[in-house]
Amino acid sequence: MSESLSGKIILSGNQYGKAENRVVRIVRDTPRHEIRDLNVSSCLRGDFTDAYLTGEQSKVLPTDTQKHTAYAYAKKVGINSPEEYALALATHYVDDIEPVDEALIEVEEFAWERAIVDGEEHPHTFVKASAEVRTVAVTHNKENTWIVSGVKDFVILKSTGSEFKGFLVDPYTILEETDDRVMATSLVMQWRLAGTDPGELGFDGLFARIREIAIATFATVHSLALQQTLYRIGEAILEEFGQVAEVRLSAPNKHHFVYDFSAFDDVENHKEVFHADDRPYGLIQAAVSREDAPDAGPAWVTYRSWL
Amino acid sequence: MSESLSGKIILSGNQYGKAENRVVRIVRDTPRHEIRDLNVSSCLRGDFTDAYLTGEQSKVLPTDTQKHTAYAYAKKVGINSPEEYALALATHYVDDIEPVDEALIEVEEFAWERAIVDGEEHPHTFVKASAEVRTVAVTHNKENTWIVSGVKDFVILKSTGSEFKGFLVDPYTILEETDDRVMATSLVMQWRLAGTDPGELGFDGLFARIREIAIATFATVHSLALQQTLYRIGEAILEEFGQVAEVRLSAPNKHHFVYDFSAFDDVENHKEVFHADDRPYGLIQAAVSREDAPDAGPAWVTYRSWL
Amino acid sequence: MSESLSGKIILSGNQYGKAENRVVRIVRDTPRHEIRDLNVSSCLRGDFTDAYLTGEQSKVLPTDTQKHTAYAYAKKVGINSPEEYALALATHYVDDIEPVDEALIEVEEFAWERAIVDGEEHPHTFVKASAEVRTVAVTHNKENTWIVSGVKDFVILKSTGSEFKGFLVDPYTILEETDDRVMATSLVMQWRLAGTDPGELGFDGLFARIREIAIATFATVHSLALQQTLYRIGEAILEEFGQVAEVRLSAPNKHHFVYDFSAFDDVENHKEVFHADDRPYGLIQAAVSREDAPDAGPAWVTYRSWL
Amino acid sequence: MSESLSGKIILSGNQYGKAENRVVRIVRDTPRHEIRDLNVSSCLRGDFTDAYLTGEQSKVLPTDTQKHTAYAYAKKVGINSPEEYALALATHYVDDIEPVDEALIEVEEFAWERAIVDGEEHPHTFVKASAEVRTVAVTHNKENTWIVSGVKDFVILKSTGSEFKGFLVDPYTILEETDDRVMATSLVMQWRLAGTDPGELGFDGLFARIREIAIATFATVHSLALQQTLYRIGEAILEEFGQVAEVRLSAPNKHHFVYDFSAFDDVENHKEVFHADDRPYGLIQAAVSREDAPDAGPAWVTYRSWL
Repeated sequence: MSESLSGKIILSGNQYGKAENRVVRIVRDTPRHEIRDLNVSSCLRGDFTDAYLTGEQSKVLPTDTQKHTAYAYAKKVGINSPEEYALALATHYVDDIEPVDEALIEVEEFAWERAIVDGEEHPHTFVKASAEVRTVAVTHNKENTWIVSGVKDFVILKSTGSEFKGFLVDPYTILEETDDRVMATSLVMQWRLAGTDPGELGFDGLFARIREIAIATFATVHSLALQQTLYRIGEAILEEFGQVAEVRLSAPNKHHFVYDFSAFDDVENHKEVFHADDRPYGLIQAAVSREDAPDAGPAWVTYRSWL
Repeated sequence: MSESLSGKIILSGNQYGKAENRVVRIVRDTPRHEIRDLNVSSCLRGDFTDAYLTGEQSKVLPTDTQKHTAYAYAKKVGINSPEEYALALATHYVDDIEPVDEALIEVEEFAWERAIVDGEEHPHTFVKASAEVRTVAVTHNKENTWIVSGVKDFVILKSTGSEFKGFLVDPYTILEETDDRVMATSLVMQWRLAGTDPGELGFDGLFARIREIAIATFATVHSLALQQTLYRIGEAILEEFGQVAEVRLSAPNKHHFVYDFSAFDDVENHKEVFHADDRPYGLIQAAVSREDAPDAGPAWVTYRSWL
Repeated sequence: MSESLSGKIILSGNQYGKAENRVVRIVRDTPRHEIRDLNVSSCLRGDFTDAYLTGEQSKVLPTDTQKHTAYAYAKKVGINSPEEYALALATHYVDDIEPVDEALIEVEEFAWERAIVDGEEHPHTFVKASAEVRTVAVTHNKENTWIVSGVKDFVILKSTGSEFKGFLVDPYTILEETDDRVMATSLVMQWRLAGTDPGELGFDGLFARIREIAIATFATVHSLALQQTLYRIGEAILEEFGQVAEVRLSAPNKHHFVYDFSAFDDVENHKEVFHADDRPYGLIQAAVSREDAPDAGPAWVTYRSWL
Repeated sequence: MSESLSGKIILSGNQYGKAENRVVRIVRDTPRHEIRDLNVSSCLRGDFTDAYLTGEQSKVLPTDTQKHTAYAYAKKVGINSPEEYALALATHYVDDIEPVDEALIEVEEFAWERAIVDGEEHPHTFVKASAEVRTVAVTHNKENTWIVSGVKDFVILKSTGSEFKGFLVDPYTILEETDDRVMATSLVMQWRLAGTDPGELGFDGLFARIREIAIATFATVHSLALQQTLYRIGEAILEEFGQVAEVRLSAPNKHHFVYDFSAFDDVENHKEVFHADDRPYGLIQAAVSREDAPDAGPAWVTYRSWL
């Protein structure tokens, strides 16, 4: 029977801002330029109920203003790291704009490599590097700050050193066990800091080192399952960095199926030729944290989590 | 100073399954065929810690099995509605697969329209309809069931009847007020049922009627802000359907800027020619619910919320 | 052995312009508004060699200017049809900009449907219609004009009435014959006019009728192969419209594979459950024309044909 | 007045095949594995008229067979380079399948970098490298062979050393001249060999060196226009390699607009902060070749050129 409610209708949640500002910052103080290429989204929370209930806008800072602010802060505070830039923006909104109680700044960073000309790094020419995207989500209110850093579209593959067997069998289970398969994923990996200090490496150095750890763990752990590999990546990061409270990983199993040549006389497949399939794909997600991790609060509540 | 943790490292969360099974079901019991075209993802939660910590797989139902199950259930229970199909799959996993405590089934449905030939509906030819995608997320455990239905990529525009003025002004605010603008969005709208019964319209009928309400509200409310329009859409849905506990809306403001012809002698723009910009865009999100809405529990925790 | 050339290096071809101007035109002369939503690209050919060889720009009309022109012409000449608008733009460049010998204007049009509110069409609210995109490419020089109209992302499916058998067999052929399969495609279809006059239906009417013919032919021809269906579509269009000189069709065979339930006891598949696969896909292309068709000249040379 | 044709309707062109076979080849003869990751499309031309006109399939090699062949040849002949693999496939179709007169094989290659673990290259773990895609189109018939190699999604930027001034001015020209701008593009670059021999570097070495030349030229030529930069890239390639007959380049001008801070008191922009815009964009295309280049024949007629 249908449950029918009759309680008062309320605005039970809201947030708003300007998404995907494509901010490119060139540092040209010397002939050797530097570039930081960001996609910046600001998201404000606070006393905005009137805008929803009556359309009265007097507490609403226009998203157009937030756009200008994102670009202006790329000059005013610069982009030492996407985390520091995001923190400056979030702090500005909470401190300077009265109706704002909490601000979330999400940043994607696209990496550029310096062009090599005649074996030397060119001072002002850059080539787009890997398709990997560095991610940052900083949430700040008057009481606390949460910093989540990460990487997405981080595609990694091992051509051996992975097995999958001993799994649960039900009437729809016809998968054969394997002790040697290709394992590949497009990893989404995010780490939440215990506080706001990245430690001696700084935010950029911490990012680079965590990426190294993930690659080394993926490569060297003989994998019994993607689940195990994910856990070991998270564990290795937490073991090395006490300032990291939690690691979240989401890994599509990008299936590489051994192509079946059994019907053909003139060719055999000793796990040398694979079909890289698109869909469907296994999807494995894990959070690895410490028992003494501080509360995550709103750290994981992003624009995307509303979709 | 950097906070440094030393607590025991634990698996603090996990889920896994097979994502994006492209299940197409044809009903061909009569010459007039029916088609349902789905993208199905299954996600299992339960006693899977060993798979992560030691790689031991004896409790892990392979994602390959979940693929076969998604297709098999399209025949065994059919697809009366994506909600009912998802509920059958989720119940199967919780009831029949011992380590599973909770299952989430996410479905996207792509609509087809019957081809018109000589003014009549053709019995077995279909044309892909709108780019809109119907969405379903059913979460089920031994105690409870949550059904969230929705639509995404639902693009709607009004060419007048929208203003934006009286907003907060800070030093970066240069936006001019307007009392007549184009308002357009690509709406993501989801509604959570109070129970599991869609009421007399059934799931397909409820979907169709809620879509109608959204369009009518968007069209007829003179908009003072996108925030207000979103709230009024949620309110109108809740007012008509007591079985709906909560509506969540996410709306990018797809900016249509009046093109500036002021530098040109031979042409004027009386809000007739616009540039449809890509990025950045305002992004407005709202949840509208009832005070007596039952707890959302895990209803909104999807694969996406881990990304 | 490697062939080695030593001839003089020359600029052997070139064209340039502004691509993807997102022009939205609202006609608001009465309370019932009209909308046309275009993606417009202009491409100029002519005496531009200096810009390439020496960097001298005195004959180069900036692409920024072409942007303004695209928007200005949406008001000056309006958008009675995308073909007429494109023709006006192309003529302007050839007639008014001295170094331009030939201009190509490419247009994509996105369709909107009028919102239905309480059973009536709303005067100023629109819902994005099908994902189909109408396409136009007009090429104009001082001697001649070519108009190619079309549609892409035109997705159509028949759930029976399609077979595939009697094909060539070689040692890698293991496909089984079928006399009843799902046939689906995402059609790209373009038709070239013999002259510049669309006939009594006008450009919009001709577009609508040709789309109807394609659907009816796809639906009613019992298909022995996608090749045959494509030819019959082209033939039907040419038979009805003497003003059309040529039809080009490109059709990915969007495979729907009958899902194999043979390993499972409790479920059978009588061509009712399919897997809609992504890649690879068959790709069938055909041109159907008349023996007395005028020369195509540069009609098919677009931006894309350089990629 | 409408021109009306009445000539006989004919099949004036056709080609077909299997597109986007995702072939991954692992060489595992030693502990140090190698990987080649390809997207392979085969396209056959020949005596296929019956399939279109009557649906008779006896000369049609199924696209399913072409799929198996693409995977089988990844083992039978291997993938020494994508060009050699494509040539082997094309030759097979023309030599072994009687109705085939001409075959086009298109290949995209996705690059992987060897994972670095503890400063050393790992033997069987790979990280997805740049988003750049290497491209190959080999066309072969009984008389001749054409090889076009290239790269796409090749994104490159210079933060100074680019100007744009002295251009043509018309009534819609309001662009200001600049002698210092950011210039960025996502280059599509293809080179056609004079014969089939890549020279002493081999196909992989030639690809790498041409990419180097493009980067060095883009970096070191002070650009007066994107047109000039493109020509100089083509010229530099032809000057170094006599075996290259023609270079085609297509370059969207990925606009980076200096963000306007003039309305704000506390921040100035000395070409340090830019908005990376999406659309519209300038699009510049050039072909650079030699006067003694052999005829291009069908070298540039790909699947895409039918769209």
